[in-house]
Amino acid sequence: MNALPEAALDSLDTPAVVIDARKVEANLRRAQAYADRHGLKLRPHIKTHKMPHLAARQLALGAAGITCQKLGEAEVMADAGIADIFLPYNIIGAAKLARLAALKRKVKLSVTADSAVVVAGYASAFTDAAAPLAVLVECDTGMGRCGVTTPEAALDLARTIAAVPGLRFGGLMTFPATHRTAEARAFLERAIALLAAAGLPPAVISSGGTPDLYGAGEDAGIVNEYRPGTYVFSDRFQVAKGVGSYDDCALSVLATVVSRPTDGRAVIDAGSKALTSDLLGLDGYGYLPAYPDARIVSLSEEHGVIDFSASPRRPAIGERIHVIPNHVCPVVNLFDSVHFVEADGSIEEVPVAARGRVG
Amino acid sequence: MNALPEAALDSLDTPAVVIDARKVEANLRRAQAYADRHGLKLRPHIKTHKMPHLAARQLALGAAGITCQKLGEAEVMADAGIADIFLPYNIIGAAKLARLAALKRKVKLSVTADSAVVVAGYASAFTDAAAPLAVLVECDTGMGRCGVTTPEAALDLARTIAAVPGLRFGGLMTFPATHRTAEARAFLERAIALLAAAGLPPAVISSGGTPDLYGAGEDAGIVNEYRPGTYVFSDRFQVAKGVGSYDDCALSVLATVVSRPTDGRAVIDAGSKALTSDLLGLDGYGYLPAYPDARIVSLSEEHGVIDFSASPRRPAIGERIHVIPNHVCPVVNLFDSVHFVEADGSIEEVPVAARGRVG
Repeated sequence: MNALPEAALDSLDTPAVVIDARKVEANLRRAQAYADRHGLKLRPHIKTHKMPHLAARQLALGAAGITCQKLGEAEVMADAGIADIFLPYNIIGAAKLARLAALKRKVKLSVTADSAVVVAGYASAFTDAAAPLAVLVECDTGMGRCGVTTPEAALDLARTIAAVPGLRFGGLMTFPATHRTAEARAFLERAIALLAAAGLPPAVISSGGTPDLYGAGEDAGIVNEYRPGTYVFSDRFQVAKGVGSYDDCALSVLATVVSRPTDGRAVIDAGSKALTSDLLGLDGYGYLPAYPDARIVSLSEEHGVIDFSASPRRPAIGERIHVIPNHVCPVVNLFDSVHFVEADGSIEEVPVAARGRVG
Repeated sequence: MNALPEAALDSLDTPAVVIDARKVEANLRRAQAYADRHGLKLRPHIKTHKMPHLAARQLALGAAGITCQKLGEAEVMADAGIADIFLPYNIIGAAKLARLAALKRKVKLSVTADSAVVVAGYASAFTDAAAPLAVLVECDTGMGRCGVTTPEAALDLARTIAAVPGLRFGGLMTFPATHRTAEARAFLERAIALLAAAGLPPAVISSGGTPDLYGAGEDAGIVNEYRPGTYVFSDRFQVAKGVGSYDDCALSVLATVVSRPTDGRAVIDAGSKALTSDLLGLDGYGYLPAYPDARIVSLSEEHGVIDFSASPRRPAIGERIHVIPNHVCPVVNLFDSVHFVEADGSIEEVPVAARGRVG
């Protein structure tokens, strides 16, 4: 975080989300260059930033479109002028299907299904054979979340989709990346072969996840699209996974030390309502670049308790401390607005337009 | 949750926060009656609900005032007409002290300090000896968060406060409740004795926490004010702590089953951005009243993965399921609005006015 013009931050009250605009730009460019080099289409997942201006920047740098996890996020992005959106989610129920139909009239849209029930919903809402809705089949290549669980089931569902005049089979979608295991790769390879043999070659084969982004080239023979999200800001988890270093972390929560009850303990004004309780297997609730030996041992809702006993330096009451969160995506989702800091020290407060759009 | 008029909820899209208005009223009345019976002033903590109409209801039922954890929450409540606010937090820095001074011109205000540095800040911003700011001394009676760590330090800080013309020593504050341990009780008793001997008897001795609310009467000889928060809605953690039963849980997250990839697995459209990752030592990420044997085994940001293998009944895709969260306070803080359901099935959508006011 050493590059941030700290004096400029004095105008911000804490806790505040501070974003180094130069690091964001570098992170976006690095990923796009990697995707270009490996012949992969990049379709960034906006769940991390939830801000239309960053989606627009991702597209300007060469992204093929964006990914939104929820319909509500996609509506915000469409309203802001984003023209190509993929929803890797089963959209279910009359209310959401009506919203989905309205969204399709605005943007180039593709969605996901992992069951015939979901496809039947799409079929009820989309009946225009001249402009069918693209539906990708979600494949569970090892995560154990959503997705069909065999290549044969993927073929079956693709056939179900292709048989509906208002729909078209758009391809295959999985998460996380398939190059991580031989089983995942074998699943996709067999599904692709079955589909090709059935006359339904998948146009899009989409994978994702920032932890595996810079290995996605290994998948390039199988996968043709990649959906990273966290890479825009990075976080402590990504660094732990070997994706860059703390120097690539563009976002921090700026907090104030409000108490020093003992020599080794400090309390900051950022708790789980600013940092979330996400541990992701890490030790403690964030990383302090200015105090690498300190440990955020616990969070209440509005307090962060830090153990400085292993740190040669200790902060004073009133000192401001940057915290790089464990998991940046849900942190952004807690704040109505964030602060972009430019190299010249200018600060722009930007609303998190799609914050809380979980529906 | 059996009392909720489920058919009325069809109009809501998911995930949505649904609140049984009758249960809220019963929870508020029960706590107030308990406090009245034991001669304790109730000063509810609004961090749980963040809604002015509920703060007003708490006051109408007999609360002495409200508690807000952050200044931003207090500003929202003051703007809505709440007249008596306690901030059990160290307020630090010129920007916040200016806001605090503005707040004091609107409401009967009291705050907290646990160090001379914090008191010095208050002294710089409050100089009117005719209307001094009430400052309580926070005592760490065992939590290991903020607070002076000895009764002697409490006396020292009370003297520091009392020596400032624009401030007055308001009493002692601790969290959680002191009746839980003999040490905590002994700390407060000694501090009270020292203060009385020094001519600074504490007017307010304030304790808090819903888990210990219905034991607070044991403290009534020492403590005269109690600050429960979660009792308004209750949650899975409170039930685990023995505070009432699931029948007292007024708030649930209504979610839709979006996938049934295997016989034993279901995925709902509520993940950590709707339920938070708070575990609080519990097994799984929430309780399903309709499926008590099911277990929410993992949350992604927008997916909840449920293991139904121990459940004799299994849900269909599209079915709606209520989830009682582990920890209700940060859940409310994720949503811009929530839905109050009355006995007649009428639903009122209410903004969470102080959501995200962490500063």
